[in-house]
Amino acid sequence: MEISKIITNIKKERPEINSVFFVGCGASKADLYPAKYFLEVNSKKLRTSLYTANEFFYATPISVNEKSIVITCSLGGSTPETVQASKKAMELGAKVIAVTHKADSPLTYNAHFVIVHGFEKNYAAKLEKMTNVLGLAAEILNQYEGYENYDALWDGIGKIYGLIENSVATVVPSAKAFAEKYKDDSIIYVMSSGATYEVAYAFSICLLMEMQWINSGTFHDGEFFHGPFEITEKGVPFILLMNDGKTREMDSRTLTFLNRFDAKTTIIDAKDFGLSSFVDSSVIDYFNPMLITAVLRVYAEQLALQRNHPLTKRRYMWKLEY
Amino acid sequence: MEISKIITNIKKERPEINSVFFVGCGASKADLYPAKYFLEVNSKKLRTSLYTANEFFYATPISVNEKSIVITCSLGGSTPETVQASKKAMELGAKVIAVTHKADSPLTYNAHFVIVHGFEKNYAAKLEKMTNVLGLAAEILNQYEGYENYDALWDGIGKIYGLIENSVATVVPSAKAFAEKYKDDSIIYVMSSGATYEVAYAFSICLLMEMQWINSGTFHDGEFFHGPFEITEKGVPFILLMNDGKTREMDSRTLTFLNRFDAKTTIIDAKDFGLSSFVDSSVIDYFNPMLITAVLRVYAEQLALQRNHPLTKRRYMWKLEY
Repeated sequence: MEISKIITNIKKERPEINSVFFVGCGASKADLYPAKYFLEVNSKKLRTSLYTANEFFYATPISVNEKSIVITCSLGGSTPETVQASKKAMELGAKVIAVTHKADSPLTYNAHFVIVHGFEKNYAAKLEKMTNVLGLAAEILNQYEGYENYDALWDGIGKIYGLIENSVATVVPSAKAFAEKYKDDSIIYVMSSGATYEVAYAFSICLLMEMQWINSGTFHDGEFFHGPFEITEKGVPFILLMNDGKTREMDSRTLTFLNRFDAKTTIIDAKDFGLSSFVDSSVIDYFNPMLITAVLRVYAEQLALQRNHPLTKRRYMWKLEY
Repeated sequence: MEISKIITNIKKERPEINSVFFVGCGASKADLYPAKYFLEVNSKKLRTSLYTANEFFYATPISVNEKSIVITCSLGGSTPETVQASKKAMELGAKVIAVTHKADSPLTYNAHFVIVHGFEKNYAAKLEKMTNVLGLAAEILNQYEGYENYDALWDGIGKIYGLIENSVATVVPSAKAFAEKYKDDSIIYVMSSGATYEVAYAFSICLLMEMQWINSGTFHDGEFFHGPFEITEKGVPFILLMNDGKTREMDSRTLTFLNRFDAKTTIIDAKDFGLSSFVDSSVIDYFNPMLITAVLRVYAEQLALQRNHPLTKRRYMWKLEY
């Protein structure tokens, strides 16, 4: 069902909603962050929270009830923690929307509505998950409270996939340079701010730690100056994801500091890809994560090639029970 | 002013409140987490969010208004980002409560109410910040919505300081053993769940990175199995903070995995200090962070001694403008 219809249907049955919960694990949790961030900044009344699925399951908020919408997300639709959380949300009376690449997966049987998104086709398809969830959030906000930049947001959704494909086509040389420069590093830090904060997180825990077995740490770049920056020295490896939008000032301050002390710094900057020519300034914050995630994918692929370590190689996942 | 009176005063003037924001930087942000987590789990209607101060300042949620309470926190009361955020919250009409160790600091002039807490006296005093903020959250919840475990929570607040002092007195030998074992490690990972999640974060970014210049990464242990666990091998250094409460199952699952693959694992376990004999099971989740933070402080002190690197040594903080 299309996004707007899902919310129209929910509203017909539940004219009042208090809260919107986002629930997932790992990269699928991080992909929910831009939508959660969007609601956090723009909604006047709706509560919103983002949970790793087991935390939601074991310490379920008492506000999960018939006045809640719960959006659960798993690429393959079979992450046991997320399926279990989705089931619990239904039992508590919430309206549950599952977002997955896999139709007829266990997650889809534990939800009232299902959105199936692409993945394999191209880089843009890999961002359908994150973008659809942002669309859901905008739809919920608009139908339940009204949202003045609703048209601008959907206009942005209509344009972001094209921008992604154009952008990734240009970045192989810089991704190769990155891969050569970072291939032997024993730790890489990743930072960002705003709606892109958990893109940094996902790159750190999934692309670097999970798929490359490289040590990594990640934090909000607004937090950098309140602890982590003391490890900055010449040559310490960082990746900084720079937003075009309200939080750019924080990203820039961090870049200045890294350059001042000659850290090994790679930036992925939404401005370099002309995001503002495609997306209206009123909603630009929420599209940085899609663009930057796609570009980072190319960087990860080049790193994998340089290191002769395929992104699909695992020690534990898919191999044993845990 | 005492905590209950502050909220009584606010309620007299503002009988309806929609949202509670917690705003700080670094360790002072992390110290706000248990209270935010408490409200998230227990409040039926109130919205609640935790922000690093500059994110709050640059991308201020539109819901910050005369129906908000904003709790801002800075140990020395002079963190510029937090002072600026506190000022902005007042300008937007919110009721602002500043929590600081320093009376007459800039933060206190940008707030309607001030709570001054101890710090130097002993380990318990260092936890007054976190505990007072939890008390504020319980008071807000009780006065605005009612909270059935209110008495149990305050009973816990009355007992936690004694338990902290008793506990830290016993841990020097295990802290010394930890320090000897980890002193030469080039990276240390820190994990937890529940209300203790940002205790892991604070230990990682402040005690290890800031105060010891040791590389570190941190994540929720529910997320461990969705990426980070692939770097687990014999000897990889971890610290796992184990809760007595609803999320213990997640902590235990993580411990089982770390032991199975012979990682270098240190656990700090609230059960070892008998938390449940001091605090009622209905509120035990929210007291793990205070107890574990205090114990970790002793661990950090022993690590500093072993490494001949005082916890007060800095490269940048206090030394230059940034």
